[in-house]
Amino acid sequence: MKNFKVLATAAALTALPTLALAQDAAPGFDEIGPYIMTTLLFCMAGFLVFFMAAGFAMLEGGLVRSKNVTMQMTKNIGLYSIAAIMYWLMGFNLMYPGDFNGYVGSFFVPTVLDPVGVSAEDAALDYASVGSDFFFQLVFVAATASIVSGALAERIKLWPFLIFVVVLTGVMYPISGSWQWGGGWLSEMGFSDFAGSTVVHSVGGWAALAGAIVLGPRLGKYKDGKVNPMPGSNLALATLGTFILWLGWFGFNGGSQLAMGTVGDVSDVSRIFANTNMAAAAGAVTALILTQVLYKKPDLTMVLNGALAGLVSITAEPLAPTLFGALWIGAIGGVIVVLTVPMLDKLKIDDVVGAIPVHLFAGIWGTIAVVFYNSDASLGTQITGIVAYGVFTFVASLVVWFILKAVMGIRVSEEDEINGLDMSELGMEAYPEFSKG
Amino acid sequence: MKNFKVLATAAALTALPTLALAQDAAPGFDEIGPYIMTTLLFCMAGFLVFFMAAGFAMLEGGLVRSKNVTMQMTKNIGLYSIAAIMYWLMGFNLMYPGDFNGYVGSFFVPTVLDPVGVSAEDAALDYASVGSDFFFQLVFVAATASIVSGALAERIKLWPFLIFVVVLTGVMYPISGSWQWGGGWLSEMGFSDFAGSTVVHSVGGWAALAGAIVLGPRLGKYKDGKVNPMPGSNLALATLGTFILWLGWFGFNGGSQLAMGTVGDVSDVSRIFANTNMAAAAGAVTALILTQVLYKKPDLTMVLNGALAGLVSITAEPLAPTLFGALWIGAIGGVIVVLTVPMLDKLKIDDVVGAIPVHLFAGIWGTIAVVFYNSDASLGTQITGIVAYGVFTFVASLVVWFILKAVMGIRVSEEDEINGLDMSELGMEAYPEFSKG
Amino acid sequence: MKNFKVLATAAALTALPTLALAQDAAPGFDEIGPYIMTTLLFCMAGFLVFFMAAGFAMLEGGLVRSKNVTMQMTKNIGLYSIAAIMYWLMGFNLMYPGDFNGYVGSFFVPTVLDPVGVSAEDAALDYASVGSDFFFQLVFVAATASIVSGALAERIKLWPFLIFVVVLTGVMYPISGSWQWGGGWLSEMGFSDFAGSTVVHSVGGWAALAGAIVLGPRLGKYKDGKVNPMPGSNLALATLGTFILWLGWFGFNGGSQLAMGTVGDVSDVSRIFANTNMAAAAGAVTALILTQVLYKKPDLTMVLNGALAGLVSITAEPLAPTLFGALWIGAIGGVIVVLTVPMLDKLKIDDVVGAIPVHLFAGIWGTIAVVFYNSDASLGTQITGIVAYGVFTFVASLVVWFILKAVMGIRVSEEDEINGLDMSELGMEAYPEFSKG
Repeated sequence: MKNFKVLATAAALTALPTLALAQDAAPGFDEIGPYIMTTLLFCMAGFLVFFMAAGFAMLEGGLVRSKNVTMQMTKNIGLYSIAAIMYWLMGFNLMYPGDFNGYVGSFFVPTVLDPVGVSAEDAALDYASVGSDFFFQLVFVAATASIVSGALAERIKLWPFLIFVVVLTGVMYPISGSWQWGGGWLSEMGFSDFAGSTVVHSVGGWAALAGAIVLGPRLGKYKDGKVNPMPGSNLALATLGTFILWLGWFGFNGGSQLAMGTVGDVSDVSRIFANTNMAAAAGAVTALILTQVLYKKPDLTMVLNGALAGLVSITAEPLAPTLFGALWIGAIGGVIVVLTVPMLDKLKIDDVVGAIPVHLFAGIWGTIAVVFYNSDASLGTQITGIVAYGVFTFVASLVVWFILKAVMGIRVSEEDEINGLDMSELGMEAYPEFSKG
Repeated sequence: MKNFKVLATAAALTALPTLALAQDAAPGFDEIGPYIMTTLLFCMAGFLVFFMAAGFAMLEGGLVRSKNVTMQMTKNIGLYSIAAIMYWLMGFNLMYPGDFNGYVGSFFVPTVLDPVGVSAEDAALDYASVGSDFFFQLVFVAATASIVSGALAERIKLWPFLIFVVVLTGVMYPISGSWQWGGGWLSEMGFSDFAGSTVVHSVGGWAALAGAIVLGPRLGKYKDGKVNPMPGSNLALATLGTFILWLGWFGFNGGSQLAMGTVGDVSDVSRIFANTNMAAAAGAVTALILTQVLYKKPDLTMVLNGALAGLVSITAEPLAPTLFGALWIGAIGGVIVVLTVPMLDKLKIDDVVGAIPVHLFAGIWGTIAVVFYNSDASLGTQITGIVAYGVFTFVASLVVWFILKAVMGIRVSEEDEINGLDMSELGMEAYPEFSKG
Repeated sequence: MKNFKVLATAAALTALPTLALAQDAAPGFDEIGPYIMTTLLFCMAGFLVFFMAAGFAMLEGGLVRSKNVTMQMTKNIGLYSIAAIMYWLMGFNLMYPGDFNGYVGSFFVPTVLDPVGVSAEDAALDYASVGSDFFFQLVFVAATASIVSGALAERIKLWPFLIFVVVLTGVMYPISGSWQWGGGWLSEMGFSDFAGSTVVHSVGGWAALAGAIVLGPRLGKYKDGKVNPMPGSNLALATLGTFILWLGWFGFNGGSQLAMGTVGDVSDVSRIFANTNMAAAAGAVTALILTQVLYKKPDLTMVLNGALAGLVSITAEPLAPTLFGALWIGAIGGVIVVLTVPMLDKLKIDDVVGAIPVHLFAGIWGTIAVVFYNSDASLGTQITGIVAYGVFTFVASLVVWFILKAVMGIRVSEEDEINGLDMSELGMEAYPEFSKG
């Protein structure tokens, strides 16, 4: 069957009466290959980014105290699941509305997949299947919500947090996302954010910052003008989480090429892999050296966050930089984390896992850094985008957090916080047999 | 070289004397593309499903008490390894015997791979390489055995368990598997089980149920008419295991499309990804809400099992349902877990990790649910299949467990059980430095 | 657009004046398909091998005592990051210098990627993109360094170790690697090492052995003629690490096929998957049975190392053997580990995680075993290669370790070792709340 097309094409030109065959023939790989490869890219990148949900859970679970680990696990699997449902129910079509006013698309249009066994004629041959596209976009929104869960750990109630996730993943993230990736006003203006330093990471960071301010710091974190360290309970787990996030980031950035069916596209995907890896390595090494220099002792949690800050920094433009470009962009991400974690503490903003330095501050840096290697991007437009996402997400988040605070309260009682959320809210310890030191 | 074919085809029609070239030419992507893509699908889905072995190990290791963790790890890496060897030695060709009587194929026909560098002429161009197919099928049988290890944890001896695994993976699973996936009598009848809610999951569940009955509950689990909770030692690990299983399920269901080289096939793979994810999310959210409503406190272990039950529920038909279909099918899976875990306890059947509700009960549900979206499936045939797998696996398992009990004993001594299997059977603690609370 | 080429080809032969079109047309999948598939193979195999960094970290973190876990995490994420930078700065082009003298290429030639959106004319259509090739090779060198970190755990200072990694990944590994994979003198001679039993694993093992000798055993490990067991702190973590390594090995060996765009190549990749899996399974089962027979109690750490030894054993030739060949080659790997771990202890060489038996001894075995299934390999040449890599790496490593010892000292103080490296060198415990037994 597969030969028919070539035969028929030649035959037509030599005037043999076999044209009908050509029209019935299945299209060849020149037509369908790109669609197959890009759909595969989204599936593969999608499962890698999905796994970042586990990475966030392990990172955050390792950095909270053991009395709050069960709660952190519950929040993280809960937020991913809610994001999956909300993004289907309204988020995906709100974020990718097709033609729209550039600011807000239509609400409550659930996602509809391609029919089973879609034919080549009915498929978007210049792109990919709806299912793969939806899945790939969905795992991104979950990442945004995971950022919030880390910053607000150890004191926020479960249900208000999950209600915030409903709003964030169903409404806020899709609306602001549509401005850029849905072809809205920022995209029209020329804002550039390849895989989402701003659209994903700083959005998560702004929502977390608003939450941290409304929620207040953990009991005893800032006392008598001193910062009271509250060490994470399981640094092996936090390291595992970081490695999983690093792994997932190959999908996060690589998949954002949005195509894999040409020589140029697949090469670009691999170029993104190499750059992404380099930025993470540079962020980690920078944090390692900097904490040695500043504090005389390398700090593992800073190294982990340095790697993540390197990753966030390269996310706005993982394709255009050289490997050396990825190195210094990532390295500055590492510097940002080491310098801004104590700064937040001075402001008495209690970010349990360092999510705001990593995702917001390094996200802003990465969005600015685009101008160094992408000549289509201008500093003014990049800053416009950063500010637009910041103002919208921070204000909207503040409003939602205040409403939740007024309506149902967002913070556990002092007693519950001291006893740990696991026993007070869930009645179940994560490590019931490992006695506390 | 690659141009020759097109040239020759055209040339032949224009009567130029270059026909010989055409016969020597390498076949083009229209011929070999589907084979390459499907072989890749099996490799990729295969490594994802392989990783489920780690997921089961972590889930089960997190849900047993710390005195039995080393044993649980040993059982899980042991069972995977044994499954790999047995499935090569006899399982694969027993399950896929080609033409056969529809009930039992030939024993002891070890798997033979394609030759190195197989040519296009000698390869199964309409399917995939033997190596990829074998690898993909092999990781499935290991999943079945992993289900058993969880249910029988904390009291079964190592070697009888591993001998059961030999029989299950070399004989029982391949025989019953051949009825459906090998083209046997159930497949002829029209039974429908896309990726194995029944063929894989409920088979594991039936074997576990038989074992749990023969083995009896853990000491002190049911005393004075009360159910004594025995909390898992590491819920972070159990959560990680669940995320890994969820990840692996994309391969489990997606790979079961068995083809990726056409527009329709790759779209279907992505559709399966989206549906699989939705069912898991729905199962988790349902369990979260339901435990809040029923017990006033959300239960993390139920949420984890809810996600898994959602996954098992959609496994029999992950392709045909809409996303909304996947949502409600998965949600009912979550309900089933929350309601049947206490039911088993009432029957004094001690299933340490909830494997029977997740894999057997949700597996039955998923197999029935096929009829709602797949018009080729009839309720009668679905029930016939469920009963056939149930009777065969449960009875055969009972027989094997009784023989093992009679010949070598399957349960550790009371003293060993109290001290923990790690010290008594293996002489090695999993967490020697974390003192017990 | 994609139709133009076929039309033009036929047209040219029928003398229609459309030849110009053919020259402008994008090349079809017959030309670019192999490049796309191989680039994808490197990306996919690359992220799998990347994840082995997490596997080594978890394995080693699980096998050291809890007072050294933070340090082990720091070393592992640090070494990976340094390897990524050094391999870009000089390693990659030193290892793959193109035409060279066969012994040493050029230093300090940083890697340059393909341009963004490289065209088919400028791409290496018979191979893969530079980015994918670089990424795939880079994750290999990190594996070599990870081997060293395990063997020298619990007593080596952080910075001397990381400096050794700089030299190993930037100079030593690339030089010796060029002898074989860069087309150097051993490759000319006919040495055969498909995925690196020698080039990667035994190189890591030799470097570790030199380090372990110079460093000396841990305090109290060998006292009064007895071997003092120092059990790992977290066997669940060690098991997870082993599963992750096993997973990564599909990329390690499968990606080393270096091509996936033909029927033969993709079949070979899948054949390698099946053989790799079989060797690991055989190594694990062998260690399980052998420790039961020798010590009456199965030893989980031996089973884990048995699986890894099986993997290392098949790495030199994962393609040619039958599944039965993979089984017995892997099984002998398992025997080697069980027998040589105590042997090293007798020599008072303290290898904390068993890295030398697994990577060096099984690596030598695997390199020899090539001759049984690959008729192009001769025993003499295989031994020449083994000796060449051994002498070069062992001597060079000794020199570097001695220089580091003389210049800055490589071992922590006795007091620091007793207190644990986490508190003394890093001031941060991995499990601060789990009191020590």
